[in-house]
Amino acid sequence: MGTFIGHISPGLAFLSFGILYAFKFSLMVLRGEKIQLLSPSRKFGFKSCLKRIPAEGVMKIVYGTLAVMAEFFYPPGVYKLIIYNKEKPGYPFIHPNEWQHVTMYSYFALSGWVDIFSQACLPKRLFLFESIAITIAFYIEALLLYSHMHGKEEVENSVHTLLLLTCFLVCLVLTVEMWRPNDHILWFTKTCLVMTQGTWLLHAAFILYKPFTGKPWKSNDMANLMFVTNFFCWHIALNIILLLAIFSLTGFWLSRCSRRRGSSALQDTKEMFSFHLKRADGAGPQSEYGKLQAAEEETQLLQVCDF
Amino acid sequence: MGTFIGHISPGLAFLSFGILYAFKFSLMVLRGEKIQLLSPSRKFGFKSCLKRIPAEGVMKIVYGTLAVMAEFFYPPGVYKLIIYNKEKPGYPFIHPNEWQHVTMYSYFALSGWVDIFSQACLPKRLFLFESIAITIAFYIEALLLYSHMHGKEEVENSVHTLLLLTCFLVCLVLTVEMWRPNDHILWFTKTCLVMTQGTWLLHAAFILYKPFTGKPWKSNDMANLMFVTNFFCWHIALNIILLLAIFSLTGFWLSRCSRRRGSSALQDTKEMFSFHLKRADGAGPQSEYGKLQAAEEETQLLQVCDF
Amino acid sequence: MGTFIGHISPGLAFLSFGILYAFKFSLMVLRGEKIQLLSPSRKFGFKSCLKRIPAEGVMKIVYGTLAVMAEFFYPPGVYKLIIYNKEKPGYPFIHPNEWQHVTMYSYFALSGWVDIFSQACLPKRLFLFESIAITIAFYIEALLLYSHMHGKEEVENSVHTLLLLTCFLVCLVLTVEMWRPNDHILWFTKTCLVMTQGTWLLHAAFILYKPFTGKPWKSNDMANLMFVTNFFCWHIALNIILLLAIFSLTGFWLSRCSRRRGSSALQDTKEMFSFHLKRADGAGPQSEYGKLQAAEEETQLLQVCDF
Amino acid sequence: MGTFIGHISPGLAFLSFGILYAFKFSLMVLRGEKIQLLSPSRKFGFKSCLKRIPAEGVMKIVYGTLAVMAEFFYPPGVYKLIIYNKEKPGYPFIHPNEWQHVTMYSYFALSGWVDIFSQACLPKRLFLFESIAITIAFYIEALLLYSHMHGKEEVENSVHTLLLLTCFLVCLVLTVEMWRPNDHILWFTKTCLVMTQGTWLLHAAFILYKPFTGKPWKSNDMANLMFVTNFFCWHIALNIILLLAIFSLTGFWLSRCSRRRGSSALQDTKEMFSFHLKRADGAGPQSEYGKLQAAEEETQLLQVCDF
Repeated sequence: MGTFIGHISPGLAFLSFGILYAFKFSLMVLRGEKIQLLSPSRKFGFKSCLKRIPAEGVMKIVYGTLAVMAEFFYPPGVYKLIIYNKEKPGYPFIHPNEWQHVTMYSYFALSGWVDIFSQACLPKRLFLFESIAITIAFYIEALLLYSHMHGKEEVENSVHTLLLLTCFLVCLVLTVEMWRPNDHILWFTKTCLVMTQGTWLLHAAFILYKPFTGKPWKSNDMANLMFVTNFFCWHIALNIILLLAIFSLTGFWLSRCSRRRGSSALQDTKEMFSFHLKRADGAGPQSEYGKLQAAEEETQLLQVCDF
Repeated sequence: MGTFIGHISPGLAFLSFGILYAFKFSLMVLRGEKIQLLSPSRKFGFKSCLKRIPAEGVMKIVYGTLAVMAEFFYPPGVYKLIIYNKEKPGYPFIHPNEWQHVTMYSYFALSGWVDIFSQACLPKRLFLFESIAITIAFYIEALLLYSHMHGKEEVENSVHTLLLLTCFLVCLVLTVEMWRPNDHILWFTKTCLVMTQGTWLLHAAFILYKPFTGKPWKSNDMANLMFVTNFFCWHIALNIILLLAIFSLTGFWLSRCSRRRGSSALQDTKEMFSFHLKRADGAGPQSEYGKLQAAEEETQLLQVCDF
Repeated sequence: MGTFIGHISPGLAFLSFGILYAFKFSLMVLRGEKIQLLSPSRKFGFKSCLKRIPAEGVMKIVYGTLAVMAEFFYPPGVYKLIIYNKEKPGYPFIHPNEWQHVTMYSYFALSGWVDIFSQACLPKRLFLFESIAITIAFYIEALLLYSHMHGKEEVENSVHTLLLLTCFLVCLVLTVEMWRPNDHILWFTKTCLVMTQGTWLLHAAFILYKPFTGKPWKSNDMANLMFVTNFFCWHIALNIILLLAIFSLTGFWLSRCSRRRGSSALQDTKEMFSFHLKRADGAGPQSEYGKLQAAEEETQLLQVCDF
Repeated sequence: MGTFIGHISPGLAFLSFGILYAFKFSLMVLRGEKIQLLSPSRKFGFKSCLKRIPAEGVMKIVYGTLAVMAEFFYPPGVYKLIIYNKEKPGYPFIHPNEWQHVTMYSYFALSGWVDIFSQACLPKRLFLFESIAITIAFYIEALLLYSHMHGKEEVENSVHTLLLLTCFLVCLVLTVEMWRPNDHILWFTKTCLVMTQGTWLLHAAFILYKPFTGKPWKSNDMANLMFVTNFFCWHIALNIILLLAIFSLTGFWLSRCSRRRGSSALQDTKEMFSFHLKRADGAGPQSEYGKLQAAEEETQLLQVCDF
């Protein structure tokens, strides 16, 4: 939907994914966890299957399906689930924007189904399949965004080009991640780019449909085009700060959990801080001993924090 | 040939190669086989040479040669094996489309000859030469597709740009494959892209020469251009599903072969399934023991299935 | 500032960074030093913290902050720290060039703060964070340079395209450096490109605002555009020579330092020369013994040279 | 020089380099030689220095210097060593084409000087410096070719775009070669591309200045543009065949040399053939024993063949 709400809703979706990723990868880095390409076998059975259903997958399906529904049937009374206009001679195509959006959202929903299937239903988690599904979803988004820009005004094109750039960079990072799934730099680059896509879509909704001055941005004014890029650069800084904040928050939450174990608070915070820095670096090879210790700490944290 | 049949025939050719690749690489992944860069010595002699002739190479030669013939002499009575028009002053070039197609098809036929020469005639198979030949063929196709698009209508260009994109991605994958010939992700990416090229050429033939509404797609209608990209995205999903179906089919066929060996059916299917998953992952390093076991299983399968 | 001084000052800044890098990396190569991703712990305390403040970081902050100030308040009496023009109806954006420049400079200043924070304040240096900060600064510069070029004359665009090319290559090198921080080729490529950016900005200032003939370069003259590229190619040669000169200078300075230790001068120079060549190659793996020897030599050099 | 001879002469230069590379790398592959990044020390002295001067370096200097001279002073009587036209008001630039060509040729001549300096004069060969010099020369060529195309006719642009494509691919291969100097695929790709550049420049001279029909190719004829790409594709095939011929020739010459050692001819040819194939593959890791054997064989070959 080329409307205000049609840009706000995917913006919120991408932003929520970005924040979810930020927490997830911060936790993984701080605990020294790794993605296991070949996970151990799991219990069969409907109950244990339900328990394993990942939040990420459910979010993708819910967002994707709702968005597809909205494209076709929102606002209420509208019915756009048709490709050909049968009333006109030559049966011309109609609703091209809606069908492109539906295609995008469907791929994300599909990626959600793959996540659930792999993490909950299969005897072993197939991380590679999940990774391929989300990568294809972003490539499809990039391709459709590119063909989305024909015959629009310059300000709108400028806004969408920057979105396309972000999306394409996500594609590149995801492609490289298929071969380097445990690279910390790639994890956080991806997170930051997805968050930027989210906040930029939110801003784009206001630029294109609800400008603060009440008047639409003129396309023939060069200053407008230059400020679009400028605002985008500020979004990047904003999202890096947000990412750092989430990382610190996760660190403090982890350290609070370990403090409950009874050691003196001040001592522990200092230790935890240097511990974060050591882990956050992500480049030095972890010793065998370190891994064992990390696993032990993790178990204890889990027992204390009850999650 | 810029005709209906001129798009249908290469479409079928690419699709058949894609399906052949799908079966070949599925089998190789499920059996844990690898491409050997330096194969062991083989028996000389005309008979053993004939036995080793690969289906892929023969297909490339037959398709390529037929297509070259068709460009020059089809429909019957036509003779286009000339470059200069000697009747006009200045001897202008004629049949540029035909000569470009002939160049493309010749490189694929050449790649077929290299396949046969390397796999059947030489004392040792030179996998690298086969790989270089097919890579060059796709690069030449990309280059000619690019220069093919001057002065055509927008719908036709849009269709060909997407074909060029697919072809270029195949080139990239093949280039990387020269240094990583046993990467499972690259194998299936290549397969899926070649299949997409095939089905997209089939669809393109209908869009450009036999539209379902009976009227040609107007180039000045933005909706048409947007739906071209949209249809292409659906082709990708379609081909991924087709690829998964072929992979599962190969898996079931392999498990049926092993069931004949006399074990209880249900037990075996389960084992086979987890065995597929383990193999399909393609990332975990295979232990020495696993390799020996795989080789043994393979020999037994070959004895039972007789192929 | 789209003025003479607005191109001279960043030019001098980039040139000074390039020369700083040239000395720094020459020293590191000649001494066989490596960047340590995970540095050892350091003393806390305000004094030792102040001692560790890096020149590079201070330079970035000073240059960046001064440039931001100049954009808003130079020449004296000007006040440009406003985005909206509140006097006109529709509140149009004003000063787009200034705000884009400010964004660029701020990212470089930010990178300087990260350098100081990481090298001086933290208990352990986080090289990765410094590297990410400067990489983002160059990416932002490239993005803003790209959107800077709308609606300008061809000569100006030509000059800026070459600047953008250099900047983009710096981005690529910095991106690869995140995973290969000790690659000698990348170090010197980066240095040379940053120096080229500097001298090219200096030249650009003269081309655009103070042409030597006194008349502005005409955009419709093809010869002008061709000479812009030509001059750029000469800048590259010039900067390579400058880089080699700095490398030799550093080598002679190092050899003078070791000569003071009392060995015969001629003998030592020869040894030092072949020693430089051996080290400069940067490809042969250094033996364990070589490393120990290098560390020892370094300590002795430091004692003699007192720096 | 935008003339017939101005395209023929660089064409012959590139072709001769390509053929030189073809022989050089064929020999290296067949003998299992490798490029040594850190060569052993060599004898000093003027005589031994002169002996080591490489043919490649001398060729680059001679070709480059002659071409620079020709740009400025050919045909005799012409004097173009001026940038500003002092007779016109505003001192406009003149001879932009000549100065761009001079810049290109100078970089190649410079690369020749670096070759000689590194291979003959220095105590140790610095392969990395030679490699960087030639890489920069090709990047400069690509940059100047790109800016060379403004305001020319479409046929000329089409011819130059294909030249630029070849040149850019050489740049890419040379860049990757800096980190993988012993990759056989890269060696032969580079060789083939340089040869293609040569033969294509020769063909371009005829297309642009001496068309076989006597009439210049019309730019508004689409068939002409399509045939330009078509001819280029045939050049690639031609050069691959030429490369294979040179490789086989080198193989037979090597086998003839070893036959002189007195073994039965037929037996030896067979052995040599399978030996070539084994070596040509370039992927299988060579055993320590193989290396020793290769070094021994090489010494014997050198004693017999006297070169």
